Amino acid sequence: MVDVPQLVEQARQGRPRAVARLISLVEGASPQLREVMAALAPLTGGAYVVGLTGSPGVGKSTTTSALVTAYRKAGRRVGVLAVDPSSPFSGGALLGDRVRMSEHASDPGVYIRSMATRGHLGGLAWAAPQAIRVLDAAGCDVVLVETVGVGQSEVEIASQADTSVVLLAPGMGDGIQAAKAGILEIGDVYVVNKADRDGADATARELNHMLGLGESRSPGDWRPPIVKTVAARAEGIDEVVEALEKHRAWMEERGVLAQRRRSRAAREVETIAVTALRERIGDLRGDQRLDALADRIVTGETDPYRAADELVDGLTNGG
Amino acid sequence: MVDVPQLVEQARQGRPRAVARLISLVEGASPQLREVMAALAPLTGGAYVVGLTGSPGVGKSTTTSALVTAYRKAGRRVGVLAVDPSSPFSGGALLGDRVRMSEHASDPGVYIRSMATRGHLGGLAWAAPQAIRVLDAAGCDVVLVETVGVGQSEVEIASQADTSVVLLAPGMGDGIQAAKAGILEIGDVYVVNKADRDGADATARELNHMLGLGESRSPGDWRPPIVKTVAARAEGIDEVVEALEKHRAWMEERGVLAQRRRSRAAREVETIAVTALRERIGDLRGDQRLDALADRIVTGETDPYRAADELVDGLTNGG
Repeated sequence: MVDVPQLVEQARQGRPRAVARLISLVEGASPQLREVMAALAPLTGGAYVVGLTGSPGVGKSTTTSALVTAYRKAGRRVGVLAVDPSSPFSGGALLGDRVRMSEHASDPGVYIRSMATRGHLGGLAWAAPQAIRVLDAAGCDVVLVETVGVGQSEVEIASQADTSVVLLAPGMGDGIQAAKAGILEIGDVYVVNKADRDGADATARELNHMLGLGESRSPGDWRPPIVKTVAARAEGIDEVVEALEKHRAWMEERGVLAQRRRSRAAREVETIAVTALRERIGDLRGDQRLDALADRIVTGETDPYRAADELVDGLTNGG
Repeated sequence: MVDVPQLVEQARQGRPRAVARLISLVEGASPQLREVMAALAPLTGGAYVVGLTGSPGVGKSTTTSALVTAYRKAGRRVGVLAVDPSSPFSGGALLGDRVRMSEHASDPGVYIRSMATRGHLGGLAWAAPQAIRVLDAAGCDVVLVETVGVGQSEVEIASQADTSVVLLAPGMGDGIQAAKAGILEIGDVYVVNKADRDGADATARELNHMLGLGESRSPGDWRPPIVKTVAARAEGIDEVVEALEKHRAWMEERGVLAQRRRSRAAREVETIAVTALRERIGDLRGDQRLDALADRIVTGETDPYRAADELVDGLTNGG
């Protein structure tokens, strides 16, 4: 068994291996998961969690890397959680990208962690918040969560962030794709990366139009800014950081940050509770109760609803 | 309130409006859903459920339509459940497709029903089996379930079928896409549609290679056939029907059909039970218990796991 209090103490002291170990414990649903989470709870809440999402090829990893550099210059400790299968962190990308990211590999103020998106449905949505908690408790001032902008689970992960950044690039038909994936609804800050390419202005204009930014809003509403960047040359990155800080300040002023974190915690509890209940149902496979019910459905003796009632009654009466 | 026994009787007599009404009742989670499902239970089990899946553009709807024609010629009653947002049934496709499908619109031996894929996660996986039950109870000999081959929920729906047909078309980079979506694991029959186009043989060869069909198998194992079709001209459709019948006979011989239906019923019960439990958790939002727990997580007073334990205990002790 791992000495959890010791590991947490080492993580607090900034030892990367302790941080990595803790993430592995929470990610792998270790038997000590609950002990770890209980130990972390009083240490969390200090990190500002920024989600970065966008289609493959828009330059998420390059932008993430440039943001890490900018935050490090300002003396912040940074955690990176990459849940993008095409991310260099996850080992799925070109060597060139890897090299570009490796500049942070030896910086003790940066934790980089990749998470596989494979595995059972909901697995990622379940594991990512726990990993964010570890990075938070380890003293990261900022946690950047990089996700590929497709699919429901990625949108859910984006919803784990305090501030969501949606990245686009010119000439990728991103507008339509973005709308499809629903990511136009989740952006607090929009970045048009590769802004030195043809069509960057058109992409920004299209985005502006789709977001309805020209329309009047209530005073005090957040108006998602659109920032143009060339992340590979760090151009526009300071403006992204500025937009993030503005959004954070706006959220704090209006109590939005606390509210977002409350909803996030509520969702997290729900997910864990549903998973626990689902496991209890799964356990019923062992004693063949579920199989027996299934047989009775196939023969038409009962229907799935009555069977589910029996199952739930069995569960909730300790049966 | 709807007179459910009467509606079920009318559906048994082949009245399309009664069938449509019943599907609406089960799809919309009507208060009478349980009554409907209970009434249908003894009438189900007669339909052979065939799932058709594939990327947009491979010709799923055309193939489905051609299969309907073939089964109708053989005197079978056919139900079609389209859960593809790009399907002409769902209203998302070109007018040309609509016209092509409308040949079945006036045939009393064919029920066509579309289901939206939008809505809450898991909504479709939950509603589709109920709709299949209605079509089954209404006396359909064959139910064709057309789904677009992307995403987890579609794969789950494919798993509702007795036999799963995976469609591909030449020159669409389908091989890689198919592998990605995991649909290469679910096919009992593979169809290379648009076989009059360049690259059809290459697609079939690549598929053959990826499926490892060249490798030796245990005698008696099912060897998924690859059928080439031009569905728009009904070419190869009889061969698809033949492959389906062979697969069905193989499953019946070996008890695989009964086993698949049992697993399906077990999954269905699980889904309904988990949904019911999730709703109970949702109800807790009303009395602010979940919000109170979330507050305590944000302040670091407790962690999500202890909070989830409290929630589950509250549920399972009737709290």
